[in-house]
Amino acid sequence: MSYQIGVVKRNIVRAEKSALEKLSRFGVATVHEAMGRVGLMQTYMRPIYPGAHLCGTAVTVLLHPGDNWMMHVVAEQIQPGDVVVAAVTSQCTDGFFGDLLATSFKARGAKGLVIDGGVRDVKDLTAMQFPVFSKAVSAKGTIKATLGSVNIPVICAGALVNPGDVIIADDDGVVVVPAAAAREAADAAEARENNEADKRSKLAAGVLGLDMYKMREGLERAGLKYLD
Amino acid sequence: MSYQIGVVKRNIVRAEKSALEKLSRFGVATVHEAMGRVGLMQTYMRPIYPGAHLCGTAVTVLLHPGDNWMMHVVAEQIQPGDVVVAAVTSQCTDGFFGDLLATSFKARGAKGLVIDGGVRDVKDLTAMQFPVFSKAVSAKGTIKATLGSVNIPVICAGALVNPGDVIIADDDGVVVVPAAAAREAADAAEARENNEADKRSKLAAGVLGLDMYKMREGLERAGLKYLD
Amino acid sequence: MSYQIGVVKRNIVRAEKSALEKLSRFGVATVHEAMGRVGLMQTYMRPIYPGAHLCGTAVTVLLHPGDNWMMHVVAEQIQPGDVVVAAVTSQCTDGFFGDLLATSFKARGAKGLVIDGGVRDVKDLTAMQFPVFSKAVSAKGTIKATLGSVNIPVICAGALVNPGDVIIADDDGVVVVPAAAAREAADAAEARENNEADKRSKLAAGVLGLDMYKMREGLERAGLKYLD
Amino acid sequence: MSYQIGVVKRNIVRAEKSALEKLSRFGVATVHEAMGRVGLMQTYMRPIYPGAHLCGTAVTVLLHPGDNWMMHVVAEQIQPGDVVVAAVTSQCTDGFFGDLLATSFKARGAKGLVIDGGVRDVKDLTAMQFPVFSKAVSAKGTIKATLGSVNIPVICAGALVNPGDVIIADDDGVVVVPAAAAREAADAAEARENNEADKRSKLAAGVLGLDMYKMREGLERAGLKYLD
Amino acid sequence: MSYQIGVVKRNIVRAEKSALEKLSRFGVATVHEAMGRVGLMQTYMRPIYPGAHLCGTAVTVLLHPGDNWMMHVVAEQIQPGDVVVAAVTSQCTDGFFGDLLATSFKARGAKGLVIDGGVRDVKDLTAMQFPVFSKAVSAKGTIKATLGSVNIPVICAGALVNPGDVIIADDDGVVVVPAAAAREAADAAEARENNEADKRSKLAAGVLGLDMYKMREGLERAGLKYLD
Amino acid sequence: MSYQIGVVKRNIVRAEKSALEKLSRFGVATVHEAMGRVGLMQTYMRPIYPGAHLCGTAVTVLLHPGDNWMMHVVAEQIQPGDVVVAAVTSQCTDGFFGDLLATSFKARGAKGLVIDGGVRDVKDLTAMQFPVFSKAVSAKGTIKATLGSVNIPVICAGALVNPGDVIIADDDGVVVVPAAAAREAADAAEARENNEADKRSKLAAGVLGLDMYKMREGLERAGLKYLD
Repeated sequence: MSYQIGVVKRNIVRAEKSALEKLSRFGVATVHEAMGRVGLMQTYMRPIYPGAHLCGTAVTVLLHPGDNWMMHVVAEQIQPGDVVVAAVTSQCTDGFFGDLLATSFKARGAKGLVIDGGVRDVKDLTAMQFPVFSKAVSAKGTIKATLGSVNIPVICAGALVNPGDVIIADDDGVVVVPAAAAREAADAAEARENNEADKRSKLAAGVLGLDMYKMREGLERAGLKYLD
Repeated sequence: MSYQIGVVKRNIVRAEKSALEKLSRFGVATVHEAMGRVGLMQTYMRPIYPGAHLCGTAVTVLLHPGDNWMMHVVAEQIQPGDVVVAAVTSQCTDGFFGDLLATSFKARGAKGLVIDGGVRDVKDLTAMQFPVFSKAVSAKGTIKATLGSVNIPVICAGALVNPGDVIIADDDGVVVVPAAAAREAADAAEARENNEADKRSKLAAGVLGLDMYKMREGLERAGLKYLD
Repeated sequence: MSYQIGVVKRNIVRAEKSALEKLSRFGVATVHEAMGRVGLMQTYMRPIYPGAHLCGTAVTVLLHPGDNWMMHVVAEQIQPGDVVVAAVTSQCTDGFFGDLLATSFKARGAKGLVIDGGVRDVKDLTAMQFPVFSKAVSAKGTIKATLGSVNIPVICAGALVNPGDVIIADDDGVVVVPAAAAREAADAAEARENNEADKRSKLAAGVLGLDMYKMREGLERAGLKYLD
Repeated sequence: MSYQIGVVKRNIVRAEKSALEKLSRFGVATVHEAMGRVGLMQTYMRPIYPGAHLCGTAVTVLLHPGDNWMMHVVAEQIQPGDVVVAAVTSQCTDGFFGDLLATSFKARGAKGLVIDGGVRDVKDLTAMQFPVFSKAVSAKGTIKATLGSVNIPVICAGALVNPGDVIIADDDGVVVVPAAAAREAADAAEARENNEADKRSKLAAGVLGLDMYKMREGLERAGLKYLD
Repeated sequence: MSYQIGVVKRNIVRAEKSALEKLSRFGVATVHEAMGRVGLMQTYMRPIYPGAHLCGTAVTVLLHPGDNWMMHVVAEQIQPGDVVVAAVTSQCTDGFFGDLLATSFKARGAKGLVIDGGVRDVKDLTAMQFPVFSKAVSAKGTIKATLGSVNIPVICAGALVNPGDVIIADDDGVVVVPAAAAREAADAAEARENNEADKRSKLAAGVLGLDMYKMREGLERAGLKYLD
Repeated sequence: MSYQIGVVKRNIVRAEKSALEKLSRFGVATVHEAMGRVGLMQTYMRPIYPGAHLCGTAVTVLLHPGDNWMMHVVAEQIQPGDVVVAAVTSQCTDGFFGDLLATSFKARGAKGLVIDGGVRDVKDLTAMQFPVFSKAVSAKGTIKATLGSVNIPVICAGALVNPGDVIIADDDGVVVVPAAAAREAADAAEARENNEADKRSKLAAGVLGLDMYKMREGLERAGLKYLD
């Protein structure tokens, strides 16, 4: 079968370092816009503490509900600057991850965790300032019984993540940039941000978007009527 | 057809200023009680940062899913002290609003935004201390293609909002006070709050609500039994 | 009928004090693991402010939707160190509890509230540092019309709570320890925590869980394949 | 206060009979389109049996969670051809309605019930072919303790319903037509349906919407690219 | 620890046969009312086919998410007339049960299944007319790796179920009658049903509940106002 | 950018016909198991009428919320035996599809539709016996304003779908079989089904799964205890 359950891919192609560094300067909303509004995870993925943010290359892991065995397997594949992206084969909010695994991931150089499931030890993770974006917080423990996979393509919170992709997460959510598109996305994000500074000062001065974006004609053509 | 799509009503009757100012001294729970427990939006409407609160007169906007064109149209109708109330024709969590629109709204004197949809740039909005109450946070961008309306009656998160109504929002949620009822609601809220101070000190001193509210007889009549 | 509606049980057997004190040193995740992964409430139970936590003995109350009459009845049954656990006969997010009741509960010595419903006056409760774990925040007021019960066994957020049980709650959720199991759970939690300190330092030094837990052989036996 | 709790309005203006009859020939989707895509209740409102459908004039009732007292009050206000529309002051799935009330409503000439809450006795209601559109099915009984209102404007499942409005419901959902717009909506629905018959036969013959609606040029202008 | 994981209780006390038979003549709503409105499972528990219904004594099983090993263990404990009630240690919609297990359960004399999780092979189960009430339908398979328990008290969809309790389920939901209360509940249900026949015919003849239940005075006392 | 918005891929490689035909003989649960328990869409995807089922090759379309313009573009790409799989860039339950589009799709030879959004005209679609699996039913109409894409890889209800993949859907849900794996999956499904017939008759004869699957030893080794 073409799907690979029970495999660990050791060699993955990570996004180019300089593109990654450039991308790390921008927020999720900017990068998502720069990419043409694709690659966003679903809105239920939230930071476990306000201000949590991360940018790194994905190492992926596929878990089974209630089972975090593969979290230990993926730990070994982490390289400094990586973000672990964990998907589950069906919806489960159990606490697959806590302070011990965070200690291990951090020691390996991980930048954080994105998990379509639950995590626990939120107080400790916050104290460690180890950024986690998850679907839930749950003290519910997990077992170690069934093989999943590491570094295969996974679908996490509605987004396809290939190992090596860039993951950016902040208060606005989580976005995935394909490794091959990282450079282009970074450049587009930079252009967008430069462009916004000027707009921001105009709007702050009271100029209306209606005028700045020259929308009045289009609105009138669409039939907008002003009534008194 | 009596429904008005594609219209902007320029002249609306805002709630009386002194009533509004009086109302601004009370929290959502107090005002909601003072009004007879009506006018509350659904509980999924949450502040984007802890402590966010606002009180102002509603200018309303009806959006379509994934489309924020009318946000620029409503901006022009904002007067100092207004709160923009945005409804969507069907459920959508896209990020209809971010830091650029907030900059524009703020420049117009807006007190904040209440939206039955998503917002983004949460970090910037928090830094600006621009209070937003929303259904979701989402980096997902929107298009500008379809006309909605401005300053028509809308249903936002289960509550009817007429332009000019008073909107009060804090950690407890969002409540709508009809413009014509603002004075009466403010007076009732004041009476309620005065009344509570005395109760609070009695309860703090260990007096039971059972005695203070004289509930024991009613409970006994209803059949309450004490067992050892 | 064996169910008891309209009763207040005055004498309940609270968990042993020394066991309770020992349990109060551990977090929810640790205690939940120590008990064999049972007794956890559902993950929708969240603290109303970050860092809220509590540990105490349960006094229970069964409410009806939209009715908080029995909250005043349970207040009289609170002893110093108790936690009120409130269940509702059907799902309801109304604000059953606010700052006046909190003032009363606190005056009676309550350690906090766990409620499978809504609460309000979140700002005041936070200022009072009165810990509440709830399903929702809602300004919606309630009536006082129908009898429930106090100190009967209740099911709160999916967990059975008998009066006198130990309730522990923190950022990770809410766990119930049966009174009779409190001592054993405390000892098991302590053993677990002692055991974790050593693991934590090894993991921090870069030792992998794969090696520390001796998982490699099991994974190989299960068929795990490493690919390049 | 302008809100009216505890009132029953006896005289309401029902939509014109001929417009109502004409509207009854069309489905919810057609009428909703004919009205300019407004007035639809949320999609969680479902028929309790497949094929349930209704068309009639609204008599409205506002209930409190867990309390169906006003259902008996509204029964007296039903005239032949009416549909009862029940809103609740906060979200509640209790079974506010069952076979006894259905028997009473039917005897008064009611065409059915639309309720933003729960119902029970589904088997009996199905046998009676009494159409009900609800948010939930629940055996949970309710009390009779608190006044709501009858024939005031209510918000039901996100839609504003004024007494006398036309309510149409079928497998596709529930739509509200304001009484004053009933004639115009009926005419527009008829025009729309006539127009669709021709389209349907063209499409059935294999003509593409791309050609029938002349979309190719617009798509090309928008930048659509065909790749091999 | 007082909780028992990894145990199978072989001897349980089933509700008295004659009480069970009497209860089987009544629907869920009637029994729930007869019991004082307690013991109902949450409303998300739905029959997998319209008209499914069951009445029998509970044998219980506690499962882990994604693991149906114990379903085979509970099969051996089924006696003719039993209903299997399956709880899961955390929320999981996987398909724990399908046509093979149904064949086995049926051969053992089971009356049906109530599961706070998912099931599959719905078409086959419908053809077999094997009634199942579940939280979800899912083709997702499960593993056999972790011990749960059989015939311990469980919480299923918010209701406490002790082995031997009577389980009644139909289109209106699922209700649990404690074994010791079965006789009393049956008698109360019968009395209630007898009582309803008379009411039904009065209501069908056009008598209003307002008069039949003598509500007018209470409503007036509560302050109800009739307006024209 | 590597993502392709605004493109229509005309030539796709469809799964081999004989594999597809073989797969069409099996249900979703069987195929899902045969594939190693992968490829399943989320459980909220439900048939619009009981008994709806389909098996065909995917042509994919990516829509924007509230916009069904691309549905007309994908119609032209349908070949006999295809199933349209529609994804939306953010969660939206609007009615993107109704009887007119169904007439067109059917005329092109489509086997059905799988859509992570809403549909309408359920009564007509049922009468046409045009199988649709959707997230919601909604009469809410959509606009035609924004380009999406046709025949690019999409994520639909949590599953990756490449154009040409085999889609199988029935009462148990929707599963995706990659085109390259279709033959192997069909063979594995056949083997599984053959294997089940024997098991089914043993279980029907009263043999326990415990014995048939030789589970007793494993359970004992895991520590299962039988109590009286």
